[in-house]
Amino acid sequence: MNYSMIRYILGSVMAIEGLFMLPPALVGLIYGENREAVMYLILAACVIGAGMLLRFRKPKVNTFYAREGFVAVASSWIVLSVIGALPFWIIGDIPRYVDALFEVISGFTTTGSSILADVEAMTHANLFWRSFSHWIGGMGVLVFILAILPMTGGSTINLMKAESPGPSVGKLVPRIQQTAVWLYGIYFVMTLIQIVLMLLGGMPVFDALCTAFGTAGTGGFGIKGDSIAGYSVYLQNVITIFMMLFGVNFSFYYYILIRRARDAFSMEEVRWYLVIYLAAVLLITVNLSWGSGIGTAPGNFQAAAFQVASVMTTTGFATVDFDLWPGFSRAIMVTVMFIGACAGSTGGGIKVSRILLYVRQVRIELQQQIHPRTVKVLKMDGKGADKGMIRSCNIFLMAYLLIFVGSVLVVSLDGFDLTTTFTAVVATINNIGPGLGAVGPTANFAAFSDLSKFVMMFDMLAGRLEIIPMLVLVSPLTWKK
Amino acid sequence: MNYSMIRYILGSVMAIEGLFMLPPALVGLIYGENREAVMYLILAACVIGAGMLLRFRKPKVNTFYAREGFVAVASSWIVLSVIGALPFWIIGDIPRYVDALFEVISGFTTTGSSILADVEAMTHANLFWRSFSHWIGGMGVLVFILAILPMTGGSTINLMKAESPGPSVGKLVPRIQQTAVWLYGIYFVMTLIQIVLMLLGGMPVFDALCTAFGTAGTGGFGIKGDSIAGYSVYLQNVITIFMMLFGVNFSFYYYILIRRARDAFSMEEVRWYLVIYLAAVLLITVNLSWGSGIGTAPGNFQAAAFQVASVMTTTGFATVDFDLWPGFSRAIMVTVMFIGACAGSTGGGIKVSRILLYVRQVRIELQQQIHPRTVKVLKMDGKGADKGMIRSCNIFLMAYLLIFVGSVLVVSLDGFDLTTTFTAVVATINNIGPGLGAVGPTANFAAFSDLSKFVMMFDMLAGRLEIIPMLVLVSPLTWKK
Repeated sequence: MNYSMIRYILGSVMAIEGLFMLPPALVGLIYGENREAVMYLILAACVIGAGMLLRFRKPKVNTFYAREGFVAVASSWIVLSVIGALPFWIIGDIPRYVDALFEVISGFTTTGSSILADVEAMTHANLFWRSFSHWIGGMGVLVFILAILPMTGGSTINLMKAESPGPSVGKLVPRIQQTAVWLYGIYFVMTLIQIVLMLLGGMPVFDALCTAFGTAGTGGFGIKGDSIAGYSVYLQNVITIFMMLFGVNFSFYYYILIRRARDAFSMEEVRWYLVIYLAAVLLITVNLSWGSGIGTAPGNFQAAAFQVASVMTTTGFATVDFDLWPGFSRAIMVTVMFIGACAGSTGGGIKVSRILLYVRQVRIELQQQIHPRTVKVLKMDGKGADKGMIRSCNIFLMAYLLIFVGSVLVVSLDGFDLTTTFTAVVATINNIGPGLGAVGPTANFAAFSDLSKFVMMFDMLAGRLEIIPMLVLVSPLTWKK
Repeated sequence: MNYSMIRYILGSVMAIEGLFMLPPALVGLIYGENREAVMYLILAACVIGAGMLLRFRKPKVNTFYAREGFVAVASSWIVLSVIGALPFWIIGDIPRYVDALFEVISGFTTTGSSILADVEAMTHANLFWRSFSHWIGGMGVLVFILAILPMTGGSTINLMKAESPGPSVGKLVPRIQQTAVWLYGIYFVMTLIQIVLMLLGGMPVFDALCTAFGTAGTGGFGIKGDSIAGYSVYLQNVITIFMMLFGVNFSFYYYILIRRARDAFSMEEVRWYLVIYLAAVLLITVNLSWGSGIGTAPGNFQAAAFQVASVMTTTGFATVDFDLWPGFSRAIMVTVMFIGACAGSTGGGIKVSRILLYVRQVRIELQQQIHPRTVKVLKMDGKGADKGMIRSCNIFLMAYLLIFVGSVLVVSLDGFDLTTTFTAVVATINNIGPGLGAVGPTANFAAFSDLSKFVMMFDMLAGRLEIIPMLVLVSPLTWKK
């Protein structure tokens, strides 16, 4: 294990996190929260100092392997969270540190599950930091470091692989640093466009910033008690569109930018992502309007478009309480929660491309059973799929289900009903935010025991980092000589 | 497609089913249900006659391939059910044919989900037929035919493969017919021992026969309104033990019988089956006794031992209403429902051996990620696992989940709560019987729409035949020229 390299990376993460604490300090000053602003400044100084100290001695050997990549990424996210929870706790908006840690992990992992009963009681500085954590976590802090810091050694791909969502996130461009710059460039510009469109719709600046952070990271922390319900239909629709846009594989935008539109539109994952989305929206609209006689069809369509985008991209914003919808619509919502967004986006879940791989494996198996002599190849985007990728997707599914079942068992100790327990784990491991029942869109996660909260923190991190890094970190084999 | 061979097999299935209708006729005569007895005799005569007619012309080519094996098995089970439902409907115990079909598919697939609100109102002839269907379906009707009828052509292995549960049911002995004889021999003798032990405990003959059929097939239809709760603790314990025995891989007994006890006890699946069972029983006992203060520890242990055996072997008998248990115990029950019994037993579910394969694949993946240069081989029972078997187990999981999600979506149209919808599908696809909520141990499946009932009938058959045969049957590719 290349410990000095991991130390160096953790130092960089801390230094960057310190810098990220300056905007909330500024927000505090603007809103006259001087005590809070000062606390953010002191904390930022300490964290930057400590980070620089850790970074001071450069590692002699700067190559490292997949294992070290996983450990570096997993421990970076834990350090990020342990420090990131401090402002909530020190300022006092969240009196218990465990709750603050839950809240900030929910932020960085872009989950959006909250333990706050009254979010509007929070100071502006903390409210900003809470939403900002979504933006930081959405594209990944290590990807950010790769984008801005020159890191020698060709093995940085292992860092990027471990932090980027999806089975096939490779290098868009030959140089890994260049890829990171592209990703953050697209991310930044899209966030900016959303902010401008919302400002044009009359949203206050603070709201626009925080909402855009929550959308871009597909996080879902709202700054209002009623999430997004209080904003105009125009603003809700802008958010709907941008939630969907941030759930698209970023390679799509990259191809568009380098004028290879054909490559972009031949991405099957993006097409199926839209097909599943539209199918879910239409089915729910029909179910609400004619099956149950709730509201009007156009209104239901607008609400369904927002809510499905919110859970499918695993954002978790809410305009209506979908826990009150009829059974069929709720079943669709839970299904879409599992499917998730595209690989290589900021969204969570199992990912559309993995679902495609699973369905196609079943189809090919059937074809083989029916016509044993024909040889069928599993194709993705018109090319034969890589066997290693198929294997790791299959193993992802098994590891995912095992962690899922284990988590449900532990959380069920708290004695909530099955729907609550089940969807609480669904919502955290898929980085969505709200579930159903006692963790529905209008409720929160405060009532769980600390044990359950720690399990769900693990699930959020495992979901965001796609399981393997967290398993490598906690596996005894990693730490055996 | 070798149609004449399939016709011949369907004819054999009908002839056998006609013969199986004679015992209920006898039961009817004993209980003075003369009208019912005559109806059973007429029906039996018609079915045997029709079957013999179909069997009359022997197929010229009697070899057939995997595809035909799947189609033959799937259509055999459908024919078996379509005919098997007639007595319930003609005699009038179940006025609607769809319900009768649901009930008998639930019987043959050894599910045990019932649409009857008052089972004790049924005639003895039908009650016997209902329980007897479990015994017929438990080991499989085609295995039975293979055991008693000489079938030439080496390809009968494809029939057996398609009907026997589990990933690795091979030939115990070189000749396939011999294997079938062994399986039914063990099955018959074990059923007999259970009947004797229950008669010694004072159970009436009729009850003993029906209960033994339900236990041996891991079916779970009770003949009393309170299932097994009204019987003595001795009888409950006998049933507990035999449920567990019938959930063991039958290769285990075969090895014991041919005095290769070492091979028997080295079967990892059987060991893990017991470990999971004991862990679940102990955890539930602790949760009930100390976590919730329900009842006394010995009583809870006895109840948990029965209930866990009942759902893990996917039998579905009940002595207590476990829907009233605390959340943790219910979560364990649902988990154990998914795991299921051993491959090569009469039980359903995903099967312990598949779960072992999934866990081991994840473990090996982790080891490979941590130490990329070491090559690890996935072992089962001390030997390297066959790659084809691993692949088909993985594809089973995906197909299983896809059917599961699709079924939940359709059944959710009926508008029940999520727990009911979810566990109704769990209970049918895993061939368990009762679920939770509105389909809990004290409730029934009558309230679902016909659409949902058809979906659940498909699920029961898919669960019993391990998915692929049913998918092959309904795949358009099978029927394309």
